[in-house]
Amino acid sequence: MLSVRPGTRVVRWIGDDAAVVRADGVAVVSTDVMVDGTHFRLGQAMPEDAGWRALAGALSDLAAMGAEAGEAYLSVVLAPGVDALALHRGAEALAAECGVTIAGGDLTRGPALTLAVTVVGWAAAADAVVGRDGACPGDLVGVSGPLGGSAAGLAVLEGRADGPPSLALSYLRPRPRLAAGRALAAAGAHAMLDLSDGLASDARRLAEAGGVTLRLDAAALPLADGVPAVAGALGTDPTELAATGGEDYELCACVPQAARAAAEAAGLRWIGEVAAGPADVVWRNAPPGSAAWRGYEY
Amino acid sequence: MLSVRPGTRVVRWIGDDAAVVRADGVAVVSTDVMVDGTHFRLGQAMPEDAGWRALAGALSDLAAMGAEAGEAYLSVVLAPGVDALALHRGAEALAAECGVTIAGGDLTRGPALTLAVTVVGWAAAADAVVGRDGACPGDLVGVSGPLGGSAAGLAVLEGRADGPPSLALSYLRPRPRLAAGRALAAAGAHAMLDLSDGLASDARRLAEAGGVTLRLDAAALPLADGVPAVAGALGTDPTELAATGGEDYELCACVPQAARAAAEAAGLRWIGEVAAGPADVVWRNAPPGSAAWRGYEY
Repeated sequence: MLSVRPGTRVVRWIGDDAAVVRADGVAVVSTDVMVDGTHFRLGQAMPEDAGWRALAGALSDLAAMGAEAGEAYLSVVLAPGVDALALHRGAEALAAECGVTIAGGDLTRGPALTLAVTVVGWAAAADAVVGRDGACPGDLVGVSGPLGGSAAGLAVLEGRADGPPSLALSYLRPRPRLAAGRALAAAGAHAMLDLSDGLASDARRLAEAGGVTLRLDAAALPLADGVPAVAGALGTDPTELAATGGEDYELCACVPQAARAAAEAAGLRWIGEVAAGPADVVWRNAPPGSAAWRGYEY
Repeated sequence: MLSVRPGTRVVRWIGDDAAVVRADGVAVVSTDVMVDGTHFRLGQAMPEDAGWRALAGALSDLAAMGAEAGEAYLSVVLAPGVDALALHRGAEALAAECGVTIAGGDLTRGPALTLAVTVVGWAAAADAVVGRDGACPGDLVGVSGPLGGSAAGLAVLEGRADGPPSLALSYLRPRPRLAAGRALAAAGAHAMLDLSDGLASDARRLAEAGGVTLRLDAAALPLADGVPAVAGALGTDPTELAATGGEDYELCACVPQAARAAAEAAGLRWIGEVAAGPADVVWRNAPPGSAAWRGYEY
């Protein structure tokens, strides 16, 4: 479970008790575990997809901090009949695309395919990374790309709707927004996270960490191609998929007005603004009747 | 799955996408996964033991590099009926003893209790850590403590032999030799690893990584209290348990003659010496008839 060749930071890896990696000022570390049957289903997802997706979920956390991705450590519990090499190929494909070294791991057997991924990113100093807690009244709120694709893709994979292959790939092969995250950190973003559970609940995390109100416009949410058609087939509103579907792994950032142009250059699309507390999210143009969208119609 | 309070390196942890940790010159990283039924059995081991043991196995890899232990990231797949808090108490007890911060983790559900632990240690520079590959002809070979306790403890737990509670604890609650590892690195040890599979096979790893012959004396192996009695009950030689039992997590180091006194002060007990190649291990005084002991009687 190792990369073909190590990155320039990696001093020791194969054949030792631990990897040894040249550090920058601060390490940024996240760990994620995904289990067959809970986070994906083999059959819908191939082992390659599972490897890619587990690594993507962890790297997305580094993107959300604005860190440079460095190394990944991949522990796998292999269930009977699962192709370990295919799984590794999927993870390695994404690692290569992101300039990440898979610098260590562990492999054992068990009853369900389980992937535990720890990723280490690097930044020059603690104040160069972006937490969830810095949103200020007056900030603009933006997302780094179209939403709803992963939820719509899962509906296509499960046969609940028709849709283009690009939608299934949104679910199976998400791309962590590492370049956008670094650019937004450099631009001076005040607060940032990645959309893993869905904007409706993730925006609430930014509001609570910052003690501010996020005022968001559902009509401004960028929709992934094919989401309106899948939403129609499912009998729901497209913005419902975009705001509550989750696993799009786009970034949501709160950015000072002065950084508007730099944030737009990093790909951010505006969906609202930050107001003084209380810690809350209020929506304009949200579809009525959804329990997950609280405080709408401001 | 977090420590009560963070260590002084830890800048961000709870409530963000990733932990942020002040770095030293190099990061030393190891990851281990343990699954109920493969690496331990709930029933023999309590959830507290499983948490302790999984963290101990990973920290032992940092000890083997001579790194300062820093942070641990603990991902848990919880099977029905397993007490997550007890598991965390076990890991936290060892973390507190070692000055380690459990700085992040993930928790999900699945069919078998699984613990994936990634540990990050720190050292000033790459040449301050000790790999497996540096053994030189003329080096002394030593181990950091008594052997065989874990294998004997498992035999006691499984009802195959009688023995004192200290033996069961050797198996359930191993202590990573972090202080000894740092002292041996500072003393100038040439090569080092931790005894997870057992000296008979782990010594071979040092021989192969260094391209040297390790000449070891089975009669010199320090035995844990109670090992001779358990070996007698099992009808085997005590040194057989000491050399092939595994999971003692003591260190085995190759040390230049000039560092003899410093290594002894770090607790090392001599079991042999390094000779010029070929890559091999030859034993003196080994019990006859064991397939795991090759090249004995020099």
